[in-house]
Amino acid sequence: MDAVKVGICGLGTVGYGSFTVLKNNSEEIARRVGQQVVVTQIASRALKADQDIGNIPFTTDVMEVVQNPEIDIVLELIGGVELALKLVLTAIENGKHVVTANKALIALHGNEIFAAAKAKNVIVAYEAAVAGGIPIIKGLREGLASNHIQWIAGIINGTSNFILSEMREKGSDFSAVLKQAQELGYAEADPTFDIEGIDAAHKLTILSSIAFGIPLQFEKAYTEGISEITIADIRNAEELGYRIKHLGLSAKTEEGIELRVHPALINEENLLANVNGVMNAVMVNGDAVGSTLYYGAGAGAMPTGAAVVSDVVDVVRNMRGLAGSVPALAFEADALSDTKILPIESVESAYYLRISVKDKAGVMADITEILGDLNINIEAIIQKDKGTNAQIREEDQLKTVIILTHKVKESVMLKAIGKIESLGAVAKKVTMIRVADLGDE
Amino acid sequence: MDAVKVGICGLGTVGYGSFTVLKNNSEEIARRVGQQVVVTQIASRALKADQDIGNIPFTTDVMEVVQNPEIDIVLELIGGVELALKLVLTAIENGKHVVTANKALIALHGNEIFAAAKAKNVIVAYEAAVAGGIPIIKGLREGLASNHIQWIAGIINGTSNFILSEMREKGSDFSAVLKQAQELGYAEADPTFDIEGIDAAHKLTILSSIAFGIPLQFEKAYTEGISEITIADIRNAEELGYRIKHLGLSAKTEEGIELRVHPALINEENLLANVNGVMNAVMVNGDAVGSTLYYGAGAGAMPTGAAVVSDVVDVVRNMRGLAGSVPALAFEADALSDTKILPIESVESAYYLRISVKDKAGVMADITEILGDLNINIEAIIQKDKGTNAQIREEDQLKTVIILTHKVKESVMLKAIGKIESLGAVAKKVTMIRVADLGDE
Repeated sequence: MDAVKVGICGLGTVGYGSFTVLKNNSEEIARRVGQQVVVTQIASRALKADQDIGNIPFTTDVMEVVQNPEIDIVLELIGGVELALKLVLTAIENGKHVVTANKALIALHGNEIFAAAKAKNVIVAYEAAVAGGIPIIKGLREGLASNHIQWIAGIINGTSNFILSEMREKGSDFSAVLKQAQELGYAEADPTFDIEGIDAAHKLTILSSIAFGIPLQFEKAYTEGISEITIADIRNAEELGYRIKHLGLSAKTEEGIELRVHPALINEENLLANVNGVMNAVMVNGDAVGSTLYYGAGAGAMPTGAAVVSDVVDVVRNMRGLAGSVPALAFEADALSDTKILPIESVESAYYLRISVKDKAGVMADITEILGDLNINIEAIIQKDKGTNAQIREEDQLKTVIILTHKVKESVMLKAIGKIESLGAVAKKVTMIRVADLGDE
Repeated sequence: MDAVKVGICGLGTVGYGSFTVLKNNSEEIARRVGQQVVVTQIASRALKADQDIGNIPFTTDVMEVVQNPEIDIVLELIGGVELALKLVLTAIENGKHVVTANKALIALHGNEIFAAAKAKNVIVAYEAAVAGGIPIIKGLREGLASNHIQWIAGIINGTSNFILSEMREKGSDFSAVLKQAQELGYAEADPTFDIEGIDAAHKLTILSSIAFGIPLQFEKAYTEGISEITIADIRNAEELGYRIKHLGLSAKTEEGIELRVHPALINEENLLANVNGVMNAVMVNGDAVGSTLYYGAGAGAMPTGAAVVSDVVDVVRNMRGLAGSVPALAFEADALSDTKILPIESVESAYYLRISVKDKAGVMADITEILGDLNINIEAIIQKDKGTNAQIREEDQLKTVIILTHKVKESVMLKAIGKIESLGAVAKKVTMIRVADLGDE
């Protein structure tokens, strides 16, 4: 089967991120779609010194890509609205599928773009336009397709969420944190779009349209930013059991559809209240499924690039019709690998051990010696003495020793536990619970 | 266009839930797929007294449905393995698409089933088999398709999560909470499958296969349940900064693939640590996107039914080929509605007000009278006096009054604020922040 040919327009953060994802994971992508997906042309104002595109043909004229008869899928990653609109409409006119990360373009001109795409029977995909790497468009448009959606609420602007998180954590005021965000590259030199809620309103307009089956109507969104939130408000809200977050909210009511972006108090127990820093999350409430939440990186070269390329995978599967429908096990049946499943003894993790010991001098030294001999490092030890904490103690006649270890192979840990259990002063079977490494700092 | 015909096999909790979702949301579903989707036959051992299927033909022989030449899509919702396998293979043989919620069937016989489906060019969809209403199969198989998946970690058995959550919250021991879970219907009379991790291992086997592109290998999963976790372990873990959760973990390492289900300590700051009760959540780490999380109801008639019916929507879209590819705005272009977007004044919410007052007797009475006259109920009032809390105070000469109201229409709140600002003792503009109603108790 011929390779699918992709042309990239725009090689900024997202463009180069998308190119990198396509290149790094080309083998896995081919296993997923049953054919090769290759980049055959790239257009950008200029190549940066640290950008390596190999021998892929390069042009400074983005319109060349949409006129290139060989190209099947155009990635519109130039940003902005006017040239991007012209680019996308020309690509569609020329029968090409389009993938874009441009939320302003979709929020402002989506109705026109989608009508043109439908007339030419091509796909315009835009997963990357909302919440970066989180597949929220797919979740809402397909995963929850059986539901009558009742409301959506999202932290969909990383800059605002970073500023509010830092204000709360450090006690700094708005302008100090904004300056820090600009230094870190989380906020633009002109931060208006982010902190005044315009970016979030673009995204919410798109989500609301998908959720409720209405045309895109950005001009009707109510938009309010975070620049007037003070540290006093954040502390007062906390005192009342709330966090302040910048939210996009859209709900279907008897009277009509609410479409609003503004700071909001959220119950501190809600998962959304605990989404911090530049992370994004969207909560969707459907009549059948109840509330579901989607969380992840809302921006950045690689996360956004991942969303762009997942859309490319989707388009390629669609191009092949039913034969190209998503493989049952994600990868084509003849492309499954025979990577072996490891026995539990080969797994590495940190461990929690609960050891019951007769109150006998020297047993702690014996235990730590056993661990030391096997190069098992100790992260923490807690000794529970008789009477200090009735709830934690299990048997009145014994002491409990809790040990938290560093990472070690399970076979080694089992060996250590065998030795510990054979000590005269150890009363019974040692309880062992693994610690999950979920990438927390 | 002809209606798509669906046959339902099995009318237990999930079967009747799926039927209800299809019936309740039939109009919205037609707007999403561009044609009607109708149930034309239902098979079950017996109709329960409270089940109303209208005049849809009913049979007690499930094999009748898969032999019915009129039916396009069969829903296998009878559970169990042997008869379900025969049913599914016969449906495929007869050229029908299949949607199933049966995790044991897929984990044990998926390889055979998917090979048969590929040979007959039909789809076998199974979103409901893992994590109920959360579209995690779609997220992993499509939404993150551009990523090289590195690891997945999931709370994928609601019964175990309910028991561990209750143990922690109430301080009760395992057997007491298990009994309570059985009374609430969260645990079966024979709870082995749930509490010993077998159900979670079925689901993890499926997720792992999709994540890493390997055949289903349930027999190689390491499986450990929660029956040996004590309240002492839960408290000790908390003291060390962790929560204990029952996790399914699968990771790709240099040596091979880890595939394991067991209790695990999780850093208390991780979102997974805060998934409580019968809720499910899956964290997925991809090389490009980083960590993403998917959260929602993992079981229950309507959430699982929602997943089954979302699969039906997917199958119908696939049956139509590129013309049936997901509509850009989720609903068919000619089916978008003109529901009006409400102006912000018509929105109802609770409000946080920060009012700066000159320290003058009577101003509190004036403010509460204004709110009372407009029927705005007060949830909480905080007065910040000079010197009590330097951090919260903004201006040394003023007192701050914080008011949290009940829900009221924004136009009414704005009227109240106008009156409050015109009081002589009120020093400046009132700060108003809306409270988001996210369905928290």
